[in-house]
Amino acid sequence: MNDHWSHSERESEERSLSDYRRIVLITEGFSTPFLAKTAISLLRYRTADIAAVLDSRATVSQSRELFGVDVDVPVVSRLCDVEGADAMFVGIAPPGGRIPSEWRPIMAEALRSGLDVVSGLHDFLIEDPELVRLAREHGCRLIDVRRNAFKQTAECYPFRPGCIRIQTVGHDCTVGKMVVALEIYRELDRRGEDAAFLATGQTGIMISGQGVPADCVVSDFINGAVEQLVRDNEHHEFLLIEGQGSLSHPAFSAVTLGLLHGAAPDALVFCYEAGRDFVKGLDNVPIPPLASIVSALETVANLRHPCRVIGIAINTRTLTSTEAAAEVRRASEAFGLPACDVYRDGPGVLADAALAMRNSLVTP
Amino acid sequence: MNDHWSHSERESEERSLSDYRRIVLITEGFSTPFLAKTAISLLRYRTADIAAVLDSRATVSQSRELFGVDVDVPVVSRLCDVEGADAMFVGIAPPGGRIPSEWRPIMAEALRSGLDVVSGLHDFLIEDPELVRLAREHGCRLIDVRRNAFKQTAECYPFRPGCIRIQTVGHDCTVGKMVVALEIYRELDRRGEDAAFLATGQTGIMISGQGVPADCVVSDFINGAVEQLVRDNEHHEFLLIEGQGSLSHPAFSAVTLGLLHGAAPDALVFCYEAGRDFVKGLDNVPIPPLASIVSALETVANLRHPCRVIGIAINTRTLTSTEAAAEVRRASEAFGLPACDVYRDGPGVLADAALAMRNSLVTP
Repeated sequence: MNDHWSHSERESEERSLSDYRRIVLITEGFSTPFLAKTAISLLRYRTADIAAVLDSRATVSQSRELFGVDVDVPVVSRLCDVEGADAMFVGIAPPGGRIPSEWRPIMAEALRSGLDVVSGLHDFLIEDPELVRLAREHGCRLIDVRRNAFKQTAECYPFRPGCIRIQTVGHDCTVGKMVVALEIYRELDRRGEDAAFLATGQTGIMISGQGVPADCVVSDFINGAVEQLVRDNEHHEFLLIEGQGSLSHPAFSAVTLGLLHGAAPDALVFCYEAGRDFVKGLDNVPIPPLASIVSALETVANLRHPCRVIGIAINTRTLTSTEAAAEVRRASEAFGLPACDVYRDGPGVLADAALAMRNSLVTP
Repeated sequence: MNDHWSHSERESEERSLSDYRRIVLITEGFSTPFLAKTAISLLRYRTADIAAVLDSRATVSQSRELFGVDVDVPVVSRLCDVEGADAMFVGIAPPGGRIPSEWRPIMAEALRSGLDVVSGLHDFLIEDPELVRLAREHGCRLIDVRRNAFKQTAECYPFRPGCIRIQTVGHDCTVGKMVVALEIYRELDRRGEDAAFLATGQTGIMISGQGVPADCVVSDFINGAVEQLVRDNEHHEFLLIEGQGSLSHPAFSAVTLGLLHGAAPDALVFCYEAGRDFVKGLDNVPIPPLASIVSALETVANLRHPCRVIGIAINTRTLTSTEAAAEVRRASEAFGLPACDVYRDGPGVLADAALAMRNSLVTP
């Protein structure tokens, strides 16, 4: 992991983010599916490492009931109810990225109990003198996953041609770009392929233990930070690169394009949520037609490197299974591409598309 | 000006960057046209406020000879040769953005003489404890133009329809996007129109005294910072917004798109340097065909707001006047748009295009 993430008196003996085995996820007072998306993703993709969810205001005792996830972890109201915890991870991503002030005593208690505290918010733990003092006193670490000091501009590095770079993109934020990249990566891995998942957001970094917090890099250096992340991993045959935002998002399009030009993908998987017609959080702003976003993505990606969309991933969470199947068929026909909902259907057709992509590149 | 730029013991009595009247431009050892582009632009656009250029290694005594500019300012080898100086402005923009170490004694001398020191580099003056100490001791300010704390995301704000937003874009860095925006602004102003120039880079900010250092804003907030800059100025009839980088630039495309979606321009002026076929500083990276960049710009700009290219500004500095005239004709025909080199031809045809734009928007 990157040194610059963490505040510690003993940098050299640091363990990686992926080394924790008894994590307490704090979602105190914010246990809704939208706000607690970091916790939900950690429950899904680091299941074995999660010891408990902490929310004293929850009225249920299991993660399955609290979040509707297919994972059973106890929901506790006090930290002392968890045995052998080794870290507290902030499980929420509230708009604005602030740490709720009522959480400070709970974090202080975690540090006093010898736990490292890990956060992906824009508000940094290490800017809180009281938490820094406690961390020092108890020999714990405060890790701000988003904190970084990238200062290298991109060089238009010619990546190893045998390294197939596949990036997820989407029509909005919070539609499943991380999940789709993770699912395709896992499927390729299951099939015995040499694949890696590259995280570009706080949740992905907390899951995989490495990555670049793209949205928190200074604009001049975002393309460069992502280029370096890919360079560090180009020995793999497949890289599944988590996308961010959307090229059409009024607020986050710069992040999207920095990722696209830094990673120079060969292929894109386009993700959208069925029925979402307005930008999340900007409820009066319509999202442009999907075909125009896909076309614009291919246009700008090709300014850097030959690239095309190879599959469609649909988040059908608001649909019945019959409606979902119809939406998948409709999208597949409309785009002339394989389509699926990775949760309902599995990522098989997208992994097939990735393998077909490799074959098309290696065939003369 | 933004408070967060400056380190000062007396924020409340601060004067604006545009209030200095006896500026010493330091280019010590770096007085080449490419490296000293900040100094050259300040000489051109703040002529009356520049007292001297400081370069002890220069072999000429006038700015005209040193930089080939049409401005006469003495080139001095010692700060004490300048009478009544009120500030030292860093006049260079070296790759990497570092302050040359041999400049520190000169800056220290400036502070001891009671001068404020202004820099637009990525390396911040206020991170140098010795300079901070001297500034305190002598009641001077260290102003880092690029330093900022923007943390607002864009809201897709519906700008006042009567405010015509014109942004310069280009095929690469350092082709004249700031100059073209400034020249069109000045021409509209001369014609009695209510126009404003909005700076988005350090040199533009040093010239106009306000703006957003877009390339140094954290990626999540660049669209929002630019949106706010435009909101603060939407009472004007014309806004000439300085562009940055290029949509096709492997390193800086995120900055370009953040500006484009934050400002939501009605019109673009496309700038390029005749004969420049490779990316500046990445000499083996070809620049895509101009028509494909223009087309991609219109595509992504229209994801946010209806927008079209209304004129072409050509930097013909490497051409003879006959060649330049031919290039202007050729470009005008190829794009079907008014074209000019603002230095050789003046910005008249581009100001005409801006006025025609307004007429097309107000006509039902």
